Amino acid sequence: MTAPSEPKTLLYDVADGIATITLNRPDRLNAFVDEMEAELIETFDRIDADDEVKAVVLTGAGRGFCAGMDVVDAGDAFVAWRTASTAPEGTQYDVPGDELPRRRDGGGRVVLRMFDCLKPIIAAVNGPATGVGATMILAADIRLASETAKFGFVFNRRGVIPESCSSWFLPRLVGMQTAMEWVLTGRVFKAPEALEGGLVRSLHAPEDLLPTAYALAREIADNTAPVSAALARQLLWRMQGASHPMIAHQAESLGINLRGVSADGAEGFASFVEKRPAAFPNLVSTELPDLFGSFPAPTFDPTSLEDPR
Amino acid sequence: MTAPSEPKTLLYDVADGIATITLNRPDRLNAFVDEMEAELIETFDRIDADDEVKAVVLTGAGRGFCAGMDVVDAGDAFVAWRTASTAPEGTQYDVPGDELPRRRDGGGRVVLRMFDCLKPIIAAVNGPATGVGATMILAADIRLASETAKFGFVFNRRGVIPESCSSWFLPRLVGMQTAMEWVLTGRVFKAPEALEGGLVRSLHAPEDLLPTAYALAREIADNTAPVSAALARQLLWRMQGASHPMIAHQAESLGINLRGVSADGAEGFASFVEKRPAAFPNLVSTELPDLFGSFPAPTFDPTSLEDPR
Amino acid sequence: MTAPSEPKTLLYDVADGIATITLNRPDRLNAFVDEMEAELIETFDRIDADDEVKAVVLTGAGRGFCAGMDVVDAGDAFVAWRTASTAPEGTQYDVPGDELPRRRDGGGRVVLRMFDCLKPIIAAVNGPATGVGATMILAADIRLASETAKFGFVFNRRGVIPESCSSWFLPRLVGMQTAMEWVLTGRVFKAPEALEGGLVRSLHAPEDLLPTAYALAREIADNTAPVSAALARQLLWRMQGASHPMIAHQAESLGINLRGVSADGAEGFASFVEKRPAAFPNLVSTELPDLFGSFPAPTFDPTSLEDPR
Repeated sequence: MTAPSEPKTLLYDVADGIATITLNRPDRLNAFVDEMEAELIETFDRIDADDEVKAVVLTGAGRGFCAGMDVVDAGDAFVAWRTASTAPEGTQYDVPGDELPRRRDGGGRVVLRMFDCLKPIIAAVNGPATGVGATMILAADIRLASETAKFGFVFNRRGVIPESCSSWFLPRLVGMQTAMEWVLTGRVFKAPEALEGGLVRSLHAPEDLLPTAYALAREIADNTAPVSAALARQLLWRMQGASHPMIAHQAESLGINLRGVSADGAEGFASFVEKRPAAFPNLVSTELPDLFGSFPAPTFDPTSLEDPR
Repeated sequence: MTAPSEPKTLLYDVADGIATITLNRPDRLNAFVDEMEAELIETFDRIDADDEVKAVVLTGAGRGFCAGMDVVDAGDAFVAWRTASTAPEGTQYDVPGDELPRRRDGGGRVVLRMFDCLKPIIAAVNGPATGVGATMILAADIRLASETAKFGFVFNRRGVIPESCSSWFLPRLVGMQTAMEWVLTGRVFKAPEALEGGLVRSLHAPEDLLPTAYALAREIADNTAPVSAALARQLLWRMQGASHPMIAHQAESLGINLRGVSADGAEGFASFVEKRPAAFPNLVSTELPDLFGSFPAPTFDPTSLEDPR
Repeated sequence: MTAPSEPKTLLYDVADGIATITLNRPDRLNAFVDEMEAELIETFDRIDADDEVKAVVLTGAGRGFCAGMDVVDAGDAFVAWRTASTAPEGTQYDVPGDELPRRRDGGGRVVLRMFDCLKPIIAAVNGPATGVGATMILAADIRLASETAKFGFVFNRRGVIPESCSSWFLPRLVGMQTAMEWVLTGRVFKAPEALEGGLVRSLHAPEDLLPTAYALAREIADNTAPVSAALARQLLWRMQGASHPMIAHQAESLGINLRGVSADGAEGFASFVEKRPAAFPNLVSTELPDLFGSFPAPTFDPTSLEDPR
């Protein structure tokens, strides 16, 4: 793996086992652009490969979290969208005869990468999160927000549709009734409504938001086995699509067998019995078992809808 | 399409872009009969075909919402049920040798039609909603209730089973624990328990119920693109059965591509930038893209269980 | 069916139509051992076969509910785990060349048996429930707890993974965000957090816990048809994995047809009309229809992962 180049649209930092991703286009309220999409995906690759990272905090620079897709030229938003969607002519992505070359939803690509992430992700929503800013946090495991945050699944007000796999994630997080009201009205709502609806776990004064997020990340990093966290994250997310608990049983049985006799398993039980902190030796980068070999993969035809990356 | 005949068991009205369906057998607390089943399905067909309709309010006439399946003759309920289930002799629906000809669950047929509806549905539960009256509202997107409403998934107390696809819908709306308590006890419970359990979004004084429902319908009708509402409704409901977010990604990518370059998409972004109300031109009746061509259809053998309609 | 031998790790009692299972290793806080796994499965077999039993209460003896897997020898937990996992040499369960013979997760086997149980299950959590003690209750239909109860999905702190199909059940009960926080941190939390998160339905003073559980079991046993309870339980649990409400419609249509003309259906409607308590005649042991013949079975290869039982 080559050393990643420094990202331009976000800040990346690792300290005491916790990685921080800070969306960093503060003069645009950290609005989402293609470069941010690519850099977020690369950063999660980097996180998975780095055994120093035990948990991730995702936040925004300045007064916003992410104000949705950037509308580069206010007077020409429609053309901006079309241009952004253009794929190289003559490639397989340039569908002849089509009204436009098709591309995969950028927010969805980020969220699918987060879904597969091997480290717990905590979103610390420091300010307005609308459009893809509201949907990209759905694949985080836990969401905290500042009392000054606002949220909006505004797609229907823009004449488009909910994206970033939010049609899959949002009802699983907040229930169908709340999800439908937020999506169908497209309204922007304040932090207390997000808390009441279950979108965020807790609200905090702005100065307490990151400390609380780090305390939660710390609780995970200091007490739990990184390989266990990776497997638990995969299990819980994937089994939301499983048709029967027997499918969970199959993956979990394999996992309990392998982890029960692992060095982490020995250390976990020994430290418990000896009432001391555990020091888990197994590494995510090299010692993560595959519990999902038989899990049915969703069908996705890459020739029908793709982008050049 | 021929003009529909006027329904006998319900009232239908469209005003200012909002359709109202009022169950209208008030002397029977709007109890459900076969004719109501047929007329509800026809009315949702009419709603989908009428581009004037941007949202639907479903309510009941008089002091009840719907008191379940009508038991025509109090002294002979069992025979009434059997009679209602009889299909014409000699047709494919008259299974020779069977104890009785089988028919599809009537409430289920209504709910599946609501599931496929292209307009947002708001149920305004004005009074008792029991049996099929409690289950038919589960496929509405949002449920509001009068403080005088009561609810009951009473099937187990009648010796039958939960119907109208409620075994699929109810746990997705209120969680498994609450769903199980309501279904297993079969108890009739009051509006505050419905609110606490998440079945309804909010409670209102009787005189405030319809105004609140219309205000919510108005918020949707005045601010969002009808084609977006139809697609969002399809996406959120269907993806509750999808085994992986990649399936949502596939449908959403196609949708974002098509809607991003649509006239609605242009108007949505332009009106946002210009800080003015949007006027969305695309029509549901003729311009709705199909995002679900590849979505796996459930298997349903129509020869095994059918009714004559 | 031969008379079951008396269980050693639990107490079993039936009174007034309600079965009580009491985990009974109080000097070990009712910690889970292989014998308890086998006896729980046998007891649920016994419950399903006994038409006297209309509902089940699951609780623990002494001050605990279940303190997870028993760590027999505090100084040798790792070896205890490995030993417990050993299958007879030379059998199909003894995989040659493997690091260890593989076995199915024991908690998962109990939970899958509870999932298939034909009677409603109420868990009355009287004290600490951690590890498999926290996960085995997820397949109960309703959970009540003492104010003194504690809960912990502690697996990641022991270097293993969540089991007992909890990756399937827990997010469906409490939502993904709460499930992830409890599993990723592995923290032990008190009863109020369990109530707020939706894990338990209500909290009670220790002396009120069992009376409240019995009152709820009584409400079910006295008012509802046992065959209806069995079918409703199957429907709600199974349809959580169904890809479309049409699958529920198919099973429910068959069920409504069969139950509508059953003796229970006649009694249910007659007793309702006559405003008297119902006396349902149909028996679960001999008159339970199969509504799920066509429901897609999950694939599970018994040669890949099995245990000798």
